Amino acid sequence: MRRVLITNDDGVKSKGIGALIEMMRPYADITVVAPFEAQSGMSAALTIGKPLRLTELKSEDGLKIYACSGTPADCVKMAMNQVFHEKAPDLLLSGINHGSNASIASLYSGTLGAAAEGTVYGIPSIGFSLTSHDPNADFSASVHYGKMIVDKYMESPPGADIYLNVNFPAVPIEKIKGIRFSHQGKGQWIKEFEERKDPYGFNYYWMTGEFYSLEGDDTLADHNLVAKNYISIVPHKIDTTDYDELKRLEKLWQFKI
Amino acid sequence: MRRVLITNDDGVKSKGIGALIEMMRPYADITVVAPFEAQSGMSAALTIGKPLRLTELKSEDGLKIYACSGTPADCVKMAMNQVFHEKAPDLLLSGINHGSNASIASLYSGTLGAAAEGTVYGIPSIGFSLTSHDPNADFSASVHYGKMIVDKYMESPPGADIYLNVNFPAVPIEKIKGIRFSHQGKGQWIKEFEERKDPYGFNYYWMTGEFYSLEGDDTLADHNLVAKNYISIVPHKIDTTDYDELKRLEKLWQFKI
Repeated sequence: MRRVLITNDDGVKSKGIGALIEMMRPYADITVVAPFEAQSGMSAALTIGKPLRLTELKSEDGLKIYACSGTPADCVKMAMNQVFHEKAPDLLLSGINHGSNASIASLYSGTLGAAAEGTVYGIPSIGFSLTSHDPNADFSASVHYGKMIVDKYMESPPGADIYLNVNFPAVPIEKIKGIRFSHQGKGQWIKEFEERKDPYGFNYYWMTGEFYSLEGDDTLADHNLVAKNYISIVPHKIDTTDYDELKRLEKLWQFKI
Repeated sequence: MRRVLITNDDGVKSKGIGALIEMMRPYADITVVAPFEAQSGMSAALTIGKPLRLTELKSEDGLKIYACSGTPADCVKMAMNQVFHEKAPDLLLSGINHGSNASIASLYSGTLGAAAEGTVYGIPSIGFSLTSHDPNADFSASVHYGKMIVDKYMESPPGADIYLNVNFPAVPIEKIKGIRFSHQGKGQWIKEFEERKDPYGFNYYWMTGEFYSLEGDDTLADHNLVAKNYISIVPHKIDTTDYDELKRLEKLWQFKI
């Protein structure tokens, strides 16, 4: 491992990105390309129809930091096209997100949108998240165990077209019970909007909402494991085809054309 | 089927949404909640950190049209929370998108982001796309075959936690060779940015790019089938866990904590 690309969705100045720099700085040359501003909930969105900017913020031996005006996935594309050019990085780390990306959050997560984009480029990619929205959250346990996970990754890499979604419980290091592989838990957001009236009498809506689990408390779903102070690792696929359903529908649906 | 929710990512005034209204109007009560403006490439992104607006544009017997200031996934959440309330629609149709959403485009697609969001709510959801970016594209073949696909869907529904990605070739109806089930083709975008200088001498970047197939021309991947004038249907999963890889890594990676 020589070159590591770091990005996130909380923005280039967030504490979580500093945690990843701290984690990898002793071992690799680091290039950060991260959003100017928070881009939470951006999924794998791309910026189409308006131009992007890329600004170099820092350039010192082994550490370059760029801010990009776009989404997390834009940041990865920008890094590959304008910074790395032909020589791809050996690893992409996204995060450490301020807030859980377990369960259905993985669908909306910009942190994981960037990891998915890295995987499309063939770069080994991991998204890291901590289950705390506190801007000053304590990332020390995440940095410790995150490095352990990166080492395993480089030693015995997962298959192609996979990115890892790692979620850390927000507890002190001595309370972490272990590291477990897991699946994307079933769940959804409910009560999603807070309705207000503007000074002119018109309604507007803030997205808020609360997470509602559709798993029993005792399943090995990622959000359940994290709630029990385990670090969860879910391998996610880029190809989201349901091959079993494909075969079933192929027989079931006969079209007369 | 009594109530149909229609949305898209090209915006409430696009021709493609008119095609879906035309397709379903004789059979169901229609509610459209679609973006004010084009939201292409928005994936399953949500609007967090700024408020949303919802405006009723039309209300007549069997047809209500609302514009929402957010993303396609926001539109679905807004429809469920502010329009449908307790009584969910029987079907969600997203599109008809102006442009292909086959292969890796499915990752970035706002059309499919909305279909995924519908599936999270437990609503039968289909994303439709036509392989033409022409704002005045001819949707007549798509409307004809789209209705046939909707009828099959209601007769023999796919499993839960699945949304369908339907891509129509942009050819006259007599040139369409058939309807085929397929998988998400392997591919990526390359040469993604056009670099320009602003009047003050600073660089900016437009996202452009071209599609690069990573499949042989003869595979049954969705983008290959559409190129050969077949309509392709891919069943996509909400749970993107790779269960085989999960089991493999569980054995391979042993952590000493």
